Amino acid sequence: MFALHVQPESHIPLYIQLRDQLRAMVYGGELRPGDRIPASRELAGQLGVHRTTVANAYADLESEGLIQGHVGRGTFICEGAAPHLPTPKPRVAAGNAMRWESLFADQRGEDSLARLMPEIPEDAIAFVTAKPSDDSFPVEDLRRCVNQALRSEGKRILQLGASDGYAPLRKEVQEMLRGEGTNVPGDQLLITDGCQQSLDLLCKAFLRPGDGVVLENPAYPGAIAIFAASRVNCLGARVETYPGAGGEAGLNLHELDGVLLQNRVKMMLVTPDFQNPTGTTLKMGARMKLLELAGRHQIPVIEDRIYSRLRLRGQELPSLLTLDRAGVVIQIDSFSKVAFPGLRVGWCLGPRSVIDRLRLVKQFTDLHTDQLSQAALAEFLKRGYLKRHTARMRKIYGRRLEALETALRKFMPEGVKWTAPEGGLSVWVMLPAGMDAGELLIHVRERGVFFIPGRNFYFQNPRPNTLRLGFAGLNERQIASGVETLGEQVRAEMKKRRRGAMRESESGAMRMALV
Amino acid sequence: MFALHVQPESHIPLYIQLRDQLRAMVYGGELRPGDRIPASRELAGQLGVHRTTVANAYADLESEGLIQGHVGRGTFICEGAAPHLPTPKPRVAAGNAMRWESLFADQRGEDSLARLMPEIPEDAIAFVTAKPSDDSFPVEDLRRCVNQALRSEGKRILQLGASDGYAPLRKEVQEMLRGEGTNVPGDQLLITDGCQQSLDLLCKAFLRPGDGVVLENPAYPGAIAIFAASRVNCLGARVETYPGAGGEAGLNLHELDGVLLQNRVKMMLVTPDFQNPTGTTLKMGARMKLLELAGRHQIPVIEDRIYSRLRLRGQELPSLLTLDRAGVVIQIDSFSKVAFPGLRVGWCLGPRSVIDRLRLVKQFTDLHTDQLSQAALAEFLKRGYLKRHTARMRKIYGRRLEALETALRKFMPEGVKWTAPEGGLSVWVMLPAGMDAGELLIHVRERGVFFIPGRNFYFQNPRPNTLRLGFAGLNERQIASGVETLGEQVRAEMKKRRRGAMRESESGAMRMALV
Repeated sequence: MFALHVQPESHIPLYIQLRDQLRAMVYGGELRPGDRIPASRELAGQLGVHRTTVANAYADLESEGLIQGHVGRGTFICEGAAPHLPTPKPRVAAGNAMRWESLFADQRGEDSLARLMPEIPEDAIAFVTAKPSDDSFPVEDLRRCVNQALRSEGKRILQLGASDGYAPLRKEVQEMLRGEGTNVPGDQLLITDGCQQSLDLLCKAFLRPGDGVVLENPAYPGAIAIFAASRVNCLGARVETYPGAGGEAGLNLHELDGVLLQNRVKMMLVTPDFQNPTGTTLKMGARMKLLELAGRHQIPVIEDRIYSRLRLRGQELPSLLTLDRAGVVIQIDSFSKVAFPGLRVGWCLGPRSVIDRLRLVKQFTDLHTDQLSQAALAEFLKRGYLKRHTARMRKIYGRRLEALETALRKFMPEGVKWTAPEGGLSVWVMLPAGMDAGELLIHVRERGVFFIPGRNFYFQNPRPNTLRLGFAGLNERQIASGVETLGEQVRAEMKKRRRGAMRESESGAMRMALV
Repeated sequence: MFALHVQPESHIPLYIQLRDQLRAMVYGGELRPGDRIPASRELAGQLGVHRTTVANAYADLESEGLIQGHVGRGTFICEGAAPHLPTPKPRVAAGNAMRWESLFADQRGEDSLARLMPEIPEDAIAFVTAKPSDDSFPVEDLRRCVNQALRSEGKRILQLGASDGYAPLRKEVQEMLRGEGTNVPGDQLLITDGCQQSLDLLCKAFLRPGDGVVLENPAYPGAIAIFAASRVNCLGARVETYPGAGGEAGLNLHELDGVLLQNRVKMMLVTPDFQNPTGTTLKMGARMKLLELAGRHQIPVIEDRIYSRLRLRGQELPSLLTLDRAGVVIQIDSFSKVAFPGLRVGWCLGPRSVIDRLRLVKQFTDLHTDQLSQAALAEFLKRGYLKRHTARMRKIYGRRLEALETALRKFMPEGVKWTAPEGGLSVWVMLPAGMDAGELLIHVRERGVFFIPGRNFYFQNPRPNTLRLGFAGLNERQIASGVETLGEQVRAEMKKRRRGAMRESESGAMRMALV
């Protein structure tokens, strides 16, 4: 009978499959009012299903007023079953289907963070991410915290919450910040889904298409992506990674000053501690100078503190927010690097009027941050687990960073340079000029070693000879082995290039002889 | 000594208070290189703190290179302590502080959802929200689910996740939808933070400032807010609540057709089941007609299914997505009304290319949805708890809806009308023409009864005589008592108005006599 077909292997109940197909045929005009449909026994036989299946489908359709049985005559499509479709309407043919791509607001499918995370085999040595290692996640501690929270505050956690965050977590975050020397009143704190969302909220609150925003170059790709999506004008200020004599690593403030002078800039995003991807840190003097510049130009500074608690060596430095006297700093921070990235909880600190506005924006963005994770983290902080966990991870990461540096010194040929981060989760490597990290990757990934070429972190003037090595997720043995492979390949490339250069100068010499 | 002061009652350690103030004075130019600062014993005496406190602060500052002790002479600010600030710089004065408000992208502070949720006393009868009742939250069931999830998949849950959602939850959602007759391949499903976020993602993926979007009028304020924030042109299609003879409740499709003909429309948002705030449901014929319109005009339909599982009576109707043959429907849905609004988890179904794009947008919006809640809900679904909980809540809400209707019939005077929702969490009430629900609220909230005036749900042509009564969070006794108060107040208002009208016609009669 007509085009009916059922799929017994499907998880949809057979009678629902049947019912929906019949209904669609009625509304699609394939079955018209007055048409007779087969008796349930007959259709069951044709389709090879149980009679009850057909009977159930018919019962539904009858209660919807679509079909009706007439004693002795059979079952028919009702008059008026599809009142709005008295005659079969032309359907959009497959070839005429919606061209969704043409409806998208932007053509930027290729600007994906995903492309930075290639398919990586299980046993590979992947220097790919700047995420914390999960070997040492205190899962049991967290489980106890969730239990405690649900036992004492279950209903409150599961009910709709406040847009500025779950009160007990707000209190614990304030407490933690106080212990670190940052005193923040409650109305200057907003809980968010993490730094990525904080950036989204800031974009919505402050930026209109075409506004100028200064980003570090290279920068965290997630920041580049959200600003690009907001259609703002991204202006780069160079991050110095291998300063010459007298220079300092980190954001080039001289260049920044120039950018601020020459452009109408609405805000700037700066990562003073262990900048991702370079690992550089702004010195004390540079922090003061940056604030002076921001105050003079009256430009808000978004301070990204996401890595700050992961200092692995050297002297702790005060945040821009605590040094700020002109009131220009908004700080974003998160639990994702010190605790668990799978729990999407972070926060944002700023002047009262800014937090007020961000709270409204947060509300129409996603109402509020998930409360189960907020409650779990509140308890995790309250019990001192976060402090303990962070201390532990700093030790582990410290050893891994040392192992990486040792391996780099041991296996990398002359001419390769790298930054010396005081913390964070990655080191930035610069190959000899003219080499391409993308090409290097093609060779080493065949040998099971992965990293992200530096060009992915630049939104202008990319340096193809750079790459980022994230060390947090690998143990010392893997780090040494991975860097050994990298070193061998770099040597091989350099050798090839020298041979090429020699051949070139030889052929140059031959040409000379022929002249 | 200068302006130093410590606050012993603060949670910031005293030495940190001291250290930070001294550092700020150096960088602020109040203390200059070469200046002598008091011995720790002396300063401790002046400030009334322990000498160790001062010693600790000094030790930090010394390690930062800011101060130095000279044997026999005392402690001094180092030369070069603030290299970038050799002379005191002019500071931004308080009067010259950042004018943050002038930097905001929009002036729409008043467009807050918060204003819909006034401060409500604990013992009030609040018909205010359309959120589920927390009396019956199965907190223990959920706690067991979280435990199970953390025990079996702890590390995976806590590590960074996929932008399209936690795989076990994706599987459970697909399973649930299959059971309901909606077969969705994995690449047509995206997990989000709930319907509010789904709308944000859709705005980002599809809309540019000035694009036309059709919304139901009245509509859910969160939808109005996010579209307004995206600076699109919101076009209203009227929701009929009290249709005359032959008319149907729900979106006026004739008007919709006109709007689609007269405007360049980029998308429309429709809630076929138990629309918030009106509670109206689109009949089967209207669904087909709507799809026909959308197909003919080639306009994407966003179908909001957030209330659909809360059918309290009447026949279940197929979703627009399952009826859609032209491939124009994107469906958004959520656990927030059937499970727990405090867990921010929902999903979005649509054509592959749309879900692909939304996944990218999701990634730069907040990376991914919180995984603890995703994992908890996956287990909650897997164990059949959600089905059981939903069935239970439908019974409870069904009784409350009946109680509300009984009370309305009993206590409301002639001339007051209300919708008869087949599900959802609220009823829409229309007072006699000329009455103002806002005025009514002023009177009844003094008697402990709260509701939201209807005008807050309109983005154009508001009807001041309407109001929304959310019944889910109140028991039958509270409902009866609250409606009794409402009814009394409405009667009183009507009496006042009749008297006023009489006085007016009397004075009219007098004027006539004088002429």
